[in-house]
Amino acid sequence: MNILLTNDDGILAPGLLALHERLIQDHQVQVVAPEMEQSAVGHAITLVDPIRIKPISRNGRFFGYAVSGTPADCVKLAVTELLAVKPDLILSGINLGANVGLNLLYSGTVSAATEAAILGLPALAVSLNTFFNPDFTPAAEFAARAAVLWPELGLPPGVSLNVNIPALPREKIKGAVWTRQCLTPFPETFTRRIDPRGNVYYWRGEDKKPEHVNGLSDYTHLAQGYITITPIKPDLTDHLELSRLKNHNITL
Amino acid sequence: MNILLTNDDGILAPGLLALHERLIQDHQVQVVAPEMEQSAVGHAITLVDPIRIKPISRNGRFFGYAVSGTPADCVKLAVTELLAVKPDLILSGINLGANVGLNLLYSGTVSAATEAAILGLPALAVSLNTFFNPDFTPAAEFAARAAVLWPELGLPPGVSLNVNIPALPREKIKGAVWTRQCLTPFPETFTRRIDPRGNVYYWRGEDKKPEHVNGLSDYTHLAQGYITITPIKPDLTDHLELSRLKNHNITL
Repeated sequence: MNILLTNDDGILAPGLLALHERLIQDHQVQVVAPEMEQSAVGHAITLVDPIRIKPISRNGRFFGYAVSGTPADCVKLAVTELLAVKPDLILSGINLGANVGLNLLYSGTVSAATEAAILGLPALAVSLNTFFNPDFTPAAEFAARAAVLWPELGLPPGVSLNVNIPALPREKIKGAVWTRQCLTPFPETFTRRIDPRGNVYYWRGEDKKPEHVNGLSDYTHLAQGYITITPIKPDLTDHLELSRLKNHNITL
Repeated sequence: MNILLTNDDGILAPGLLALHERLIQDHQVQVVAPEMEQSAVGHAITLVDPIRIKPISRNGRFFGYAVSGTPADCVKLAVTELLAVKPDLILSGINLGANVGLNLLYSGTVSAATEAAILGLPALAVSLNTFFNPDFTPAAEFAARAAVLWPELGLPPGVSLNVNIPALPREKIKGAVWTRQCLTPFPETFTRRIDPRGNVYYWRGEDKKPEHVNGLSDYTHLAQGYITITPIKPDLTDHLELSRLKNHNITL
């Protein structure tokens, strides 16, 4: 397969390199990824600034472009300008830290996959549920497996897959489950500080766990030790509410 | 009502000021908006940089904070730190330019409303379908009307409304319709240039219209001269595909 590899942790991130090492065993891989870390940029795109690219080649087997933009910029630019052939599959990751629940909205990793789906291309976002001492091997292995199985899944254009891998040794992972995105809000915190010049500023606080999570979802399954797979699409419409409200007239 | 007003065009944007002027006729309004334009930042949040705030007061009737972050940052920070009381409603806009179709994914205006919904608060994003010579009056009037009608709509927590207003004189607007988000991809273009130092860079091209759009949606209704209202929620799961794939096993 022709695979386009991207991420939001930046082109030098170890998670991308680990996935690259695994994929080049079986596939043609090109990398188009942000020059710098772009975590939590969500589905941002660059409108008012020029986007610069730097061709990158390493060890004679890592080829690609470092892009001065967001993950969504990378996918758009790769597909419309940089790649000679359309990729068969776009892989985003391996992200350091899970992308489950409402964090999908903030995730550059997931947005790269959604952007690919918007362009009508198959895409898979892969995240590993740890920030410390990551072993990317099971995640890279699962991504490689999903890539090969892709045609069997029969996914329609516009749908991509969001995959999360527990940070466990391979033999402790309980299997892979298809599951929905968790919609329970997580507690938000900010830390207020004063700088040496007397000005107030805030740090966004660490993610806290919610006290209660409703039903089974990517969040709960991942916590239980399962690989989670969620089919996602860029449709924000609440179709249930839409049907209910259709006849509620608001006049100007 | 206690209303929180925000946007993605920045706290000095004329669309925000027009909406503020209309809302203070009937409500308590506080403004927490980005210090600088944040268009197309999508649902980005600020993780690695400190977030600064500047208290703003003008003419004795405009009170608020300019925030060195994204629209999502503004809403999070306003609700958890800056406002003494939780707002009854969060309004985002009036944005210069429509937010319909897949652009919802890139829109800071819409993300502010989604963020409010994540925090369990009612929210309305309002955009005007023009970039030139905007007359914000019908949009401000409709937003004010929707704000008052809000309790009647019975929207559950987690759902917000995305509203687009045609750039037409009030008497030419055909009415307001409830409609879904258009999912037809728009053609993407980039312009490649060389800078005076010989380096390649790209500009993202202007939005082009798609050749064919499937079915009725926010995109088509707005083009026909209707105000569009779309209930949206931060659920990216493709539930149809999820049911179909549930028994498709992928082993590690």
